[in-house]
Amino acid sequence: MSDAMPQLPLTQIVAGLPDDVPFVGPESLERRRGRPFRVRAGANESSSGMSPLARAAMMSALDEIHCYGDPEGYELRVALAEFHNVDIDEIAIGSGIDDILGVLVRSFIGPGVVAVSSLGGYPTFNYHVIGYGGDLKLVPYRDDHEDVEALVDVARSTHASLLYVANPDSPMGTWQRREVLDGLIAELPSGCVLLLDEAYAELAPPDVMPAVTADHPRVVRLRTFSKVYGMAGARVGYAIAHRQIVRTLEKVRNHFGVNRPAQAGALAALADQDFVTTVVRDVAEGRDEYTAAASELGLRPVDSAANFVAIDAGTADRARALFAGLLDRDVFVRMPAVAPLDCCLRLSVVGPDDRQIVIAALRSAVQELP
Amino acid sequence: MSDAMPQLPLTQIVAGLPDDVPFVGPESLERRRGRPFRVRAGANESSSGMSPLARAAMMSALDEIHCYGDPEGYELRVALAEFHNVDIDEIAIGSGIDDILGVLVRSFIGPGVVAVSSLGGYPTFNYHVIGYGGDLKLVPYRDDHEDVEALVDVARSTHASLLYVANPDSPMGTWQRREVLDGLIAELPSGCVLLLDEAYAELAPPDVMPAVTADHPRVVRLRTFSKVYGMAGARVGYAIAHRQIVRTLEKVRNHFGVNRPAQAGALAALADQDFVTTVVRDVAEGRDEYTAAASELGLRPVDSAANFVAIDAGTADRARALFAGLLDRDVFVRMPAVAPLDCCLRLSVVGPDDRQIVIAALRSAVQELP
Repeated sequence: MSDAMPQLPLTQIVAGLPDDVPFVGPESLERRRGRPFRVRAGANESSSGMSPLARAAMMSALDEIHCYGDPEGYELRVALAEFHNVDIDEIAIGSGIDDILGVLVRSFIGPGVVAVSSLGGYPTFNYHVIGYGGDLKLVPYRDDHEDVEALVDVARSTHASLLYVANPDSPMGTWQRREVLDGLIAELPSGCVLLLDEAYAELAPPDVMPAVTADHPRVVRLRTFSKVYGMAGARVGYAIAHRQIVRTLEKVRNHFGVNRPAQAGALAALADQDFVTTVVRDVAEGRDEYTAAASELGLRPVDSAANFVAIDAGTADRARALFAGLLDRDVFVRMPAVAPLDCCLRLSVVGPDDRQIVIAALRSAVQELP
Repeated sequence: MSDAMPQLPLTQIVAGLPDDVPFVGPESLERRRGRPFRVRAGANESSSGMSPLARAAMMSALDEIHCYGDPEGYELRVALAEFHNVDIDEIAIGSGIDDILGVLVRSFIGPGVVAVSSLGGYPTFNYHVIGYGGDLKLVPYRDDHEDVEALVDVARSTHASLLYVANPDSPMGTWQRREVLDGLIAELPSGCVLLLDEAYAELAPPDVMPAVTADHPRVVRLRTFSKVYGMAGARVGYAIAHRQIVRTLEKVRNHFGVNRPAQAGALAALADQDFVTTVVRDVAEGRDEYTAAASELGLRPVDSAANFVAIDAGTADRARALFAGLLDRDVFVRMPAVAPLDCCLRLSVVGPDDRQIVIAALRSAVQELP
């Protein structure tokens, strides 16, 4: 096999891209470490798993695995439209929010076009913006929150085409009051599309989220079956947006990209809202447990509306030491890389037994701090 | 809901794209017709289904559906590398060949950059090229085959960055002798990358395919679990290519895009080559049956190395009439839209009982011809 680096006729944008990837997966980390994790508490996966009805639907759909999935995702989109009280033409599906973010960024961002997000926010959005040659402007967090006011100011002053806001956000788990979001939407510059990543929406207090509508021509809501529905491995996400945006995505998306059993599973999962209710309750219990443990250990837990808790260790050095201590104890968590978030560890809510392992590991890592 | 068409800050390329999609799925056609098909013989799906071992692996992986799939697809890539006797760094996975074609086209095609394919060939390649603003040059088929000599001539004279060749091809099912492909690769212009779509490779006579290597810096082989492995609904495809190309895809692909049970299923399917052997035999039997029936009905069957048979009705008018006749009888097939292929119907091999329905429908449609 040749190791020569041949000249390839790459586009200028792709030729100039860095080797970075947005996330290194836990499996890759295990291979580098040479041993498995005991607890996987770093990817905000739902240890409650999926609805038994969704599981039955996916199993049944395995009988048709030789058939491509419906490229229109029709049945799922009908159900989602009904669930959110919008029209089917206002729903787009994809293989996860990441996929949809990719086609959205492709639709709006070209060389030198500005996109705005938060410094330390979701790296996959940044990956797509840079990947399409965009000019990424990042606004620091303020008081554990995405700084909505500054974000919209920067979007206006830089003539941004896209503004990305997560609510509840990751990696902090904080959320914006409904009035703040309504204000943001009211002040959105006329040349800017707002991507509102609501991956954790179902876990937020019910009075927090702005009403779901598809009326606004430049607001896209992004939802997923990866979090509260416990189907991260299935790859189903969706956008709720003005029909013109949905029609645009139709021109660039990978039509046959959504796995067939995953479509069946998502349809069944959506119908089982009782299951969602139990997951929301279980997650709240897990958050409370992490919160209490952090306080007891002299760390500052950040109020979270998601399925994880950010825990402030006070300084970045202390956070890095705790992070290393958890990895040493075979507990996989994440920590933000940039200030001021880099004082924090992010612990995903896992099941009760695994939480005891996480908390015990955290306790002994704290005891090792200088 | 507003029907106004707001001005969106779309990129110039996306703003100019047509509303076309590469394929309208059979489910969409059923909804338009208002009734289901009896037989789905239009998407070259494998009615032999998937290996029982793959099914067991997918069922078992449903227990971990709350976890994201390994973004590196490590275990599957290790197995594929071993299977093809290449290095893991020479394998890229994606959610089907369509997904990988998308990232390949994105890597090499920008506004005005030339890509070459066959007129009437795989529409999804064209969709991606146009979607990235490329200049698509299409070379007519000759004698039921992609015209390899003309393709490479056009690639050279137009300074194309990409040349797409399918072997065996769709929609005709014909194939190129190994020497022809070897000659093409030898003559590939130095600024051009060859995408060799081998979706049907496992169904071709074993002495036909050029040897699989990843040595050539500008030859990409594309394979899939959608055809002989019977897993179209799972969405797993892969590329075998020089490590520099694989590294490039790493910079633009959707890392978490491949469904977790699908990865487990593909791994198990690859290990069950006995199952593949039975599918290859079943498909050959089905092709023979279609071939015999076509000849008996005075139509010309085209020799196929894939899981479908193109049947030449003599003229485009006759082909369209037969196509309509099959749809009237609730049999879903495809027909190419452009000359000279538009004299043909493409019948996917389906199971023995369904084949009788397809053949009976074809017989009565032939009897209705003027």
